[in-house]
Amino acid sequence: MDVGFLGLGGMGRAVAANLVAAGHRVRVWNRSRPPVEELARRGAEAAATPADAFRGDVAITLLADDAAIREVGLAGPLLEQAPSGLVHVNMATVSVDLTRELASAHAARGLGYVAAPVFGRVDVAAAGQLAIVAAGAAGAIDRAWPLFEVMGRRTWRLGPDPVAAAAVKIAGNFMLASAIEALAEATVLASRYGVSAESLLDVLTNSLFDAPVYKRYGALIEGRKYEPAGFRMVLGLKDVRLALAAGEAARVPLPFASVLRDAFLEGVAHGDGELDWSAVAEVSRRRAGPDL
Amino acid sequence: MDVGFLGLGGMGRAVAANLVAAGHRVRVWNRSRPPVEELARRGAEAAATPADAFRGDVAITLLADDAAIREVGLAGPLLEQAPSGLVHVNMATVSVDLTRELASAHAARGLGYVAAPVFGRVDVAAAGQLAIVAAGAAGAIDRAWPLFEVMGRRTWRLGPDPVAAAAVKIAGNFMLASAIEALAEATVLASRYGVSAESLLDVLTNSLFDAPVYKRYGALIEGRKYEPAGFRMVLGLKDVRLALAAGEAARVPLPFASVLRDAFLEGVAHGDGELDWSAVAEVSRRRAGPDL
Amino acid sequence: MDVGFLGLGGMGRAVAANLVAAGHRVRVWNRSRPPVEELARRGAEAAATPADAFRGDVAITLLADDAAIREVGLAGPLLEQAPSGLVHVNMATVSVDLTRELASAHAARGLGYVAAPVFGRVDVAAAGQLAIVAAGAAGAIDRAWPLFEVMGRRTWRLGPDPVAAAAVKIAGNFMLASAIEALAEATVLASRYGVSAESLLDVLTNSLFDAPVYKRYGALIEGRKYEPAGFRMVLGLKDVRLALAAGEAARVPLPFASVLRDAFLEGVAHGDGELDWSAVAEVSRRRAGPDL
Amino acid sequence: MDVGFLGLGGMGRAVAANLVAAGHRVRVWNRSRPPVEELARRGAEAAATPADAFRGDVAITLLADDAAIREVGLAGPLLEQAPSGLVHVNMATVSVDLTRELASAHAARGLGYVAAPVFGRVDVAAAGQLAIVAAGAAGAIDRAWPLFEVMGRRTWRLGPDPVAAAAVKIAGNFMLASAIEALAEATVLASRYGVSAESLLDVLTNSLFDAPVYKRYGALIEGRKYEPAGFRMVLGLKDVRLALAAGEAARVPLPFASVLRDAFLEGVAHGDGELDWSAVAEVSRRRAGPDL
Repeated sequence: MDVGFLGLGGMGRAVAANLVAAGHRVRVWNRSRPPVEELARRGAEAAATPADAFRGDVAITLLADDAAIREVGLAGPLLEQAPSGLVHVNMATVSVDLTRELASAHAARGLGYVAAPVFGRVDVAAAGQLAIVAAGAAGAIDRAWPLFEVMGRRTWRLGPDPVAAAAVKIAGNFMLASAIEALAEATVLASRYGVSAESLLDVLTNSLFDAPVYKRYGALIEGRKYEPAGFRMVLGLKDVRLALAAGEAARVPLPFASVLRDAFLEGVAHGDGELDWSAVAEVSRRRAGPDL
Repeated sequence: MDVGFLGLGGMGRAVAANLVAAGHRVRVWNRSRPPVEELARRGAEAAATPADAFRGDVAITLLADDAAIREVGLAGPLLEQAPSGLVHVNMATVSVDLTRELASAHAARGLGYVAAPVFGRVDVAAAGQLAIVAAGAAGAIDRAWPLFEVMGRRTWRLGPDPVAAAAVKIAGNFMLASAIEALAEATVLASRYGVSAESLLDVLTNSLFDAPVYKRYGALIEGRKYEPAGFRMVLGLKDVRLALAAGEAARVPLPFASVLRDAFLEGVAHGDGELDWSAVAEVSRRRAGPDL
Repeated sequence: MDVGFLGLGGMGRAVAANLVAAGHRVRVWNRSRPPVEELARRGAEAAATPADAFRGDVAITLLADDAAIREVGLAGPLLEQAPSGLVHVNMATVSVDLTRELASAHAARGLGYVAAPVFGRVDVAAAGQLAIVAAGAAGAIDRAWPLFEVMGRRTWRLGPDPVAAAAVKIAGNFMLASAIEALAEATVLASRYGVSAESLLDVLTNSLFDAPVYKRYGALIEGRKYEPAGFRMVLGLKDVRLALAAGEAARVPLPFASVLRDAFLEGVAHGDGELDWSAVAEVSRRRAGPDL
Repeated sequence: MDVGFLGLGGMGRAVAANLVAAGHRVRVWNRSRPPVEELARRGAEAAATPADAFRGDVAITLLADDAAIREVGLAGPLLEQAPSGLVHVNMATVSVDLTRELASAHAARGLGYVAAPVFGRVDVAAAGQLAIVAAGAAGAIDRAWPLFEVMGRRTWRLGPDPVAAAAVKIAGNFMLASAIEALAEATVLASRYGVSAESLLDVLTNSLFDAPVYKRYGALIEGRKYEPAGFRMVLGLKDVRLALAAGEAARVPLPFASVLRDAFLEGVAHGDGELDWSAVAEVSRRRAGPDL
């Protein structure tokens, strides 16, 4: 398939490399050039401009956030020059507001728009094992399906409205953050009663909390090893903000998200914004006093 | 083994029946008589008074809460008449304060004290598959070990201080409650964007949240089916209170527990105290407006 | 003085009328025309366009929010046509981000910019008794001073950076909202113990809480009389959002603001957005159960 | 009048001294002796035991907390030996649960019970300017009225049920704590935007927040001068706990109280428990990062 690809951060590089390896023709663009050159060495074509990449059968974008998406012109200018019938698959975590705006901007220009955010980190992406949540017109999803099969372990179809996929991704990240915060608070509490994080997690992750999220973040919190960051705290704060904004737009109070916001913000204030978001455990620890 | 058993609620009946079935001699006592008679029909001996049951090699108690434990006299009178060397295994969820008091009261009278709270509901107990968290003197735990093997799938040893086991149980229930609240908020949020609870949970429990707790409570929240209660909301509120009290005694702020307290309290205020604690999802729903 | 005036909501009409009455030459503009005509009848000049009003010695704006300010062009286009040396006095409650943007956009075009938000409602404005918080270049504030003397009971000078005034206004409204929420929770609590809101407020506002804010909002909450709204709940929610955004930009966690956000949002979700913001007391009441 | 007086902390000494000075016969008891001797030098009679003091026309108690009240025997033993018809006026801040228990224990023994907590600190008490909130049988309040007139600036009658007075006191202290927390958060926020606490407070306490509470605590927070403590943070935490317990018993969620609990607890964890409770401002400051 003829695939355009914009956004070669860690996730983008992993996904694009898999598409190339699977035999697709992939034109890649990124704001900085080194990732483009790296992908080109692996068989992708280097695109000089976003417009050069935003064409073909399917154009995939994996940009950092709402601002980056606007900056590249995906809410306007870039769409003007796109070939009619192009299907744009946006795999980033995006606000519900921008999702609605993008969906209607694409529809107005005869372009397909699929929101297809993913769960999984770079290593999962590299292994082609992402969990993909796709929403958009059925035909557009069908077109992208062979690509999803390369990238992911499983793809869920969430119906024709892209905002559904955005909401699931935002809700999922909110739940991840909540699990981390609960782990953080529980770990500090237990430690005050002589129970090591290791012991606590051994019990919990081998009984009711036998899930990847608790094992992964439990290990990070236990070891207080937050670098290199799998997902940076500033991004965690951003995603909590997306949840709060989605809640506000839909009039859904989210008291856990409010607590998370304050906790991540406190972590960032203390200089931990570039650490893994599980470093929010250090916020819990600090609040419990200087002796811990 | 010669086992005393006090407290024949749902959990107590299931555990005691397994001990009888495994060939142990079990003397059972309960405040109300019918459960005693039921167990007697299955081969247990009926004890007329707490003191009559609180003897043998090991005495197990599975009473409702701190108040019930005090009422039976386990913080004082009942210990006076207990045979020297008796090992008391307390399997209830107990406050850290009472745990410390019990540990020292038993020690003062030459009795063994093991805190051995469990994770699992009645059906899990009936299947002999409980997760048991034991703390107390090693010799005392050794004595009870054959009983733990009958009751549980696995027993963790958490060292000589019973408060460690109490803390793990309290921390674990706090994490359960947090997972439920996160599910509740996420479900309401997603529903406002056209995503059914069923879809949301299909994605989440088949990716990062592939754990018993999310599957079980996700299904209850999805179906809004909170009866019969697996664990009543009033007990959830009680356990959150135990977490807050443990945090306060150890000077550990627990902002998630504060949110949980207010949510469960609101649920109880609206008449849902006897429903399963996952009915806290109805609190999230109600807060989001009358039209949901 | 030659004064331009943009924004004739309730506050704007009251302030502009006072300036006219004090003998100033006032050119008024508003998006809808009736308020313009009303002021014209009282001696103001009707401006046909924002640019027509945005000139003279001082231009005052009292627009609804950030969006209205941008829409009129005050962050860009409108400044291009403004006469050099014009001093713009912005009396609205504005985000810290927009304040910084406006300050620098004005400076770049040689225009003065004074942030001068006010405390007080329409009746206070009509009486010329506003509390005005002004920040900007000293010369620019000096130029506007005679106007402040007409409008207000007292004006504070907060230095050269307009963001200082924006922050004080945002902090002040956050404190107002906090006082209302505290009143709301306390009132519901006391009522459950047989103490009427009237009794509670009689004690409190005649002892430690002998302040206008407690008397005013106490009376509204006591009477459950939230219409006509002195300040609508949707605006309260907006101002809490400004506080949270200011906190986030400066990395200051504001847990009370998080609670306020959820409470106002819940009030709006229940259809009370157009009521006075003290109707947040109904949220406290509803949470305490259907029987209250 | 013949007055017994138990509890000679700072408040107790000030009140008792005023009663002596007003010509009443006052028998004083305290757990430690020096305050007893001090009052004796000023004309009081020294009582050797609580029972020796708990008699006369009216017995006033001003003990530290629920535990101290129980310890002295006021929920039981001490009442047995009290002369029939004695009116007990309890001026301490007491839980609603203990208030109910005391009211019924006194009634059962034919003793009068008036809950009469006060607003005001030691200096206010010394000046005879307390605000007194009295609830109990009308005749019992009448009996104590001349004493209230000596102690206070004004006394409110809140009806026959002592719990009403307890609730007003608890609600009032909750509102004080809320005002302090709002000041704390607002001050830190404003400081990040270049506004000193002095400037912020000058504006606020001269406009909408022109109340003793904001002036007093604003000054303490501005000067970061938390010693000597007017009211210690550990007592603040205790009173927030009373509010939460009263809320829980009456099924009233109090989200502000939950935030306050976590903030005071964090302050205590950081060693500030003996400082004035306005030192909770240091919690806000610390959360905003190490550079503030």
